Amino acid sequence: MMKVRVAAFSISLDGFGAGPEQSLENPLGKGGFGLHDWAMSTRTFQTMLFGQEGGEGGIDDDFAARSFDNVGAWILGRNMFGPVRGPWPDESWRGWWGDNPPYHVPVFVLTHHLRPTLTMAGGTVFQFRNCDVRDVLDEAKRAAGGRDVRIGGGVATVRQFLAARLIDELHLAVAPVLLGRGEALFAGLDLPALGYRCVESTPSDKALHVVLRKEA
Amino acid sequence: MMKVRVAAFSISLDGFGAGPEQSLENPLGKGGFGLHDWAMSTRTFQTMLFGQEGGEGGIDDDFAARSFDNVGAWILGRNMFGPVRGPWPDESWRGWWGDNPPYHVPVFVLTHHLRPTLTMAGGTVFQFRNCDVRDVLDEAKRAAGGRDVRIGGGVATVRQFLAARLIDELHLAVAPVLLGRGEALFAGLDLPALGYRCVESTPSDKALHVVLRKEA
Repeated sequence: MMKVRVAAFSISLDGFGAGPEQSLENPLGKGGFGLHDWAMSTRTFQTMLFGQEGGEGGIDDDFAARSFDNVGAWILGRNMFGPVRGPWPDESWRGWWGDNPPYHVPVFVLTHHLRPTLTMAGGTVFQFRNCDVRDVLDEAKRAAGGRDVRIGGGVATVRQFLAARLIDELHLAVAPVLLGRGEALFAGLDLPALGYRCVESTPSDKALHVVLRKEA
Repeated sequence: MMKVRVAAFSISLDGFGAGPEQSLENPLGKGGFGLHDWAMSTRTFQTMLFGQEGGEGGIDDDFAARSFDNVGAWILGRNMFGPVRGPWPDESWRGWWGDNPPYHVPVFVLTHHLRPTLTMAGGTVFQFRNCDVRDVLDEAKRAAGGRDVRIGGGVATVRQFLAARLIDELHLAVAPVLLGRGEALFAGLDLPALGYRCVESTPSDKALHVVLRKEA
């Protein structure tokens, strides 16, 4: 069964999925990198993001690897694709990830400002959509060919899909940091009322990994 | 050095320190007991709360024991003392904890509705105060005789002391449960801006124990 899922999504102790003031210098907002400490040293992220050998195994790497497993399409919010706001001045921004992004499948980017499809090396195809979350999800499911659709973020995008009860499973990594400001993942969302409960909790040295699942 | 501290204070993944609709039947609000799963089976809580032998040792018990160590006085919000709202109809409510409460030191209860001091068995003396957090803290410090003052809760009380930067250290236990509604500990408080940062993170099988400390 294909799933719609969020995975390897980090939040701070005070519930923020990104710091404030995202910019080219701070893609995750101020202080946001601290959220991802658990992920950065894993074998999976070292390989997928940086093309480097090495990195660590263990619990963090297990969750990192699971996050990329069997993903057939992604959906991203526009701010996860880049720091540009408003209309695109030109087509020079091609994502944070260089010429060969770590997706390797169709990636749907939600934005009010459409632009032509961007075909990258390694199979990543960024397609820009200005539509309802249900519509883009339908399209992503078709593109995924029976594999999972991963909602990559950011926070605002995950919250839209959560509020619409469209996500089957979320793996969150609670990082032992305080951000104080930023984008709050849970604020105003009553997850139990939306059908979610915590079904797994696995601590590593660097984060508390939890899995939330929507009850049928 | 004496400290003002919060300890063994549980929060849900979505940031609630108590569930909604506190009542005589649900002292911690609906779903609130799930927050304290890590504590209930510890040797410390079994002894302190229930006067029973046994209970488990380990990481959870270490934190439970630390929470009671060297405490000379407590401050509680009125809702932590009981479910009665508004003026006291009489003096029959004497706390949730029976005749011999687990405090054994002076306990200051913040309330708009004063009532006479209540001297219980075992050294617990409930004293009711309607004053500024700084004033009750000054009084609690004098009563503690050089030992720590513990801010017991609930959420609203901890938030008042945090906002005033009066707490030196907080031990929080993040429980792998979702509450969805209730009293949010962090909402609208920028802890790093108030001087707090996470200095310790120790997972057990049942909770992520974190210690937040105010920088000098």
